[in-house]
Amino acid sequence: MKKQLRNRKAWSFLLVLGLSLGLAPTMSAQFRRNPVVSPEIHTDNKVTFRVYAPKANEITLSGDWMGFGKTEPLVKGDTGLWAVTIGPLEPELYGYNFTVDGVYTLDASNALVKRDGVRNISFFMIKGKGSDLYEPKHGAKGMVSKVWYDSPTLGLTRRMYVYTPPGYENSKDSYPVFYLLHGGGGDEDAWNELGLTPTIMDNLINSGQAKPMIVVMTNGNPDQTAAGIEAPAKLPSQTNEGGMGMANKKFEGSLVKDVIPYIESHYRTKKGKENRALSGLSMGGWQTLNTTFDNPELFDYICVMSMGFVKDSPFGLPANGEGRGKDIDALKKADPKVYWIACGKDDFLYDSVVNLRNTLDEHGFKYKYVESTGGHTWTNWRIYLSQFAPVLFK
Amino acid sequence: MKKQLRNRKAWSFLLVLGLSLGLAPTMSAQFRRNPVVSPEIHTDNKVTFRVYAPKANEITLSGDWMGFGKTEPLVKGDTGLWAVTIGPLEPELYGYNFTVDGVYTLDASNALVKRDGVRNISFFMIKGKGSDLYEPKHGAKGMVSKVWYDSPTLGLTRRMYVYTPPGYENSKDSYPVFYLLHGGGGDEDAWNELGLTPTIMDNLINSGQAKPMIVVMTNGNPDQTAAGIEAPAKLPSQTNEGGMGMANKKFEGSLVKDVIPYIESHYRTKKGKENRALSGLSMGGWQTLNTTFDNPELFDYICVMSMGFVKDSPFGLPANGEGRGKDIDALKKADPKVYWIACGKDDFLYDSVVNLRNTLDEHGFKYKYVESTGGHTWTNWRIYLSQFAPVLFK
Repeated sequence: MKKQLRNRKAWSFLLVLGLSLGLAPTMSAQFRRNPVVSPEIHTDNKVTFRVYAPKANEITLSGDWMGFGKTEPLVKGDTGLWAVTIGPLEPELYGYNFTVDGVYTLDASNALVKRDGVRNISFFMIKGKGSDLYEPKHGAKGMVSKVWYDSPTLGLTRRMYVYTPPGYENSKDSYPVFYLLHGGGGDEDAWNELGLTPTIMDNLINSGQAKPMIVVMTNGNPDQTAAGIEAPAKLPSQTNEGGMGMANKKFEGSLVKDVIPYIESHYRTKKGKENRALSGLSMGGWQTLNTTFDNPELFDYICVMSMGFVKDSPFGLPANGEGRGKDIDALKKADPKVYWIACGKDDFLYDSVVNLRNTLDEHGFKYKYVESTGGHTWTNWRIYLSQFAPVLFK
Repeated sequence: MKKQLRNRKAWSFLLVLGLSLGLAPTMSAQFRRNPVVSPEIHTDNKVTFRVYAPKANEITLSGDWMGFGKTEPLVKGDTGLWAVTIGPLEPELYGYNFTVDGVYTLDASNALVKRDGVRNISFFMIKGKGSDLYEPKHGAKGMVSKVWYDSPTLGLTRRMYVYTPPGYENSKDSYPVFYLLHGGGGDEDAWNELGLTPTIMDNLINSGQAKPMIVVMTNGNPDQTAAGIEAPAKLPSQTNEGGMGMANKKFEGSLVKDVIPYIESHYRTKKGKENRALSGLSMGGWQTLNTTFDNPELFDYICVMSMGFVKDSPFGLPANGEGRGKDIDALKKADPKVYWIACGKDDFLYDSVVNLRNTLDEHGFKYKYVESTGGHTWTNWRIYLSQFAPVLFK
């Protein structure tokens, strides 16, 4: 009886419990009556999605490559296996999900899930020229560390990621530092997971396109210690003001007073503004504007992604460009080597970027404007990263 | 028109796209008509699960706290909101999923998702005495790094996690090293994500229960460079033999010849067997047996979790205990300070553990046997870790 229970458990364990004993996915497929392959990427870059669901009434697919609000229906086959084939798609990393009888569902046949803020998303990659920089190569790689540092400014011990370039561990060299800020709703995981920063930087550095550098990816929410289950319970002092923390400049203060000194004392860094770069997207672009206007002598390389001077936000964002005339003049005087503004044509913050550019123009402040297709997306932010990193520290 | 499109996009972006601009989850809830709270953990440790699904016909819940194959139905309310309340539950980290009209579904209202092998699972924690060690505390913490190292033995550059204890970064001290191996179907993410090793070690070290130590969490699949999208495409030399790689001792060779030398040359480590510990679960227990029998002078602290000498496996595992008599005698002669065997009463590999113990007894080999309730689960492996780490290096 007990023995039987154990055998049943062994069986269930293989089929259901994630193969914790010693049998790989390839092996377990032999045990499954209908192993569902999804997504299947065909040689012509068409993609087939499948869900085994004899009892479902309606299944649809949503994906990054579709327009807003669009879905594709899956079609039910005789065996209860639903399927749809889409594309061909351009090489890129794509997120998608199913909706099963009205419920948001990930693809259970696809282990690749990434978190975007509060939402989890299934992903796949179409390989090719446009995604080559996202593809990990064999050989030397940088190291990514989850670093906890004291932030007296915020009264918290907080977490950030630090990427050290290939070779750092085996050399005594000092390196310049690139600080990279995420958007609202995101956290320190974002540039790692959705931005694919370690892989992109490995590829740029190993191919000689970018200088070896340290990349620091902070948590820009001033009321958070860290993302996820590794964060301690909130202290009374953690105000839980959420995204509106972006207006209080607390994070910017901690970046300058806590993060940069920590990095420059714990890593082999080259000092001085010519060895510091700052970029951020969306909320992180706002924080990039604030930090560089308030500390014009700190960074020689600056890139504001998908953010400008917001005036009349439909959702109550405070204006961030008023009264900045003196600060623009001060930054102009400090003469940073590179100042980029990057935005997609369809970004809903496009008008704010026009406003920022007009204001800078009025002050005779020189910058490079990089306009892409598309909108407020990680595809664009990965592309901006891959364009901006090669101009740094040269 | 374009402006309208942008406003619509802004709106959709808040509602759908994961709040990438700057509004936190708390904020976005105001925009949602029916913000679904799930799971809701009540003060009495009962838990309510909810799914908004007006069009679904049947929704069930499966969770770690249930017996094998059991489910609980959710009940549909008038508004299309389905719910069920279960428990009270003991303090612990629990995984769960929904099945919506027959389809495996994560809880879309819960951002906490972890991967177990090829499967993603929603998680929540019931706080209290039994989970206190899993709860992150404010203050000093160890650092976790994703380290790529050369493995000439396997012909690959591979990834592992290295945990350095609180204080490592600010001291010049040397530390002992604990090597921790995952089970089959898992990879180097497993002890980090499901084992909660960094948090458990922080808590044990900061409370004085365990000595400060480095913890190395390898990838035990000899044909993998790393888990996930950060792994390069497979080389022809990567044989894709999957879990059956556990029988070929290739990983064990690379652990001894590549991993330990890397760690001892790149970190401030104390040398000698009295400063090395090895433990693994399931497949990792098998590898622990192999490594210590084949290298009796390497580790003074050994713990085999949920694995023994397998004889007649129902799913074709090769026997791993035959012909080990001489090796047992050699390890006995080497006299490791601590040798533990840990297993749950309901583990489907329980008989193999009985077999291992009987064999060791025949050779007069001393060990400590730790038997717990439950089976082949991460709950047990977290508990074994929290019991074994405090006896190390003392």
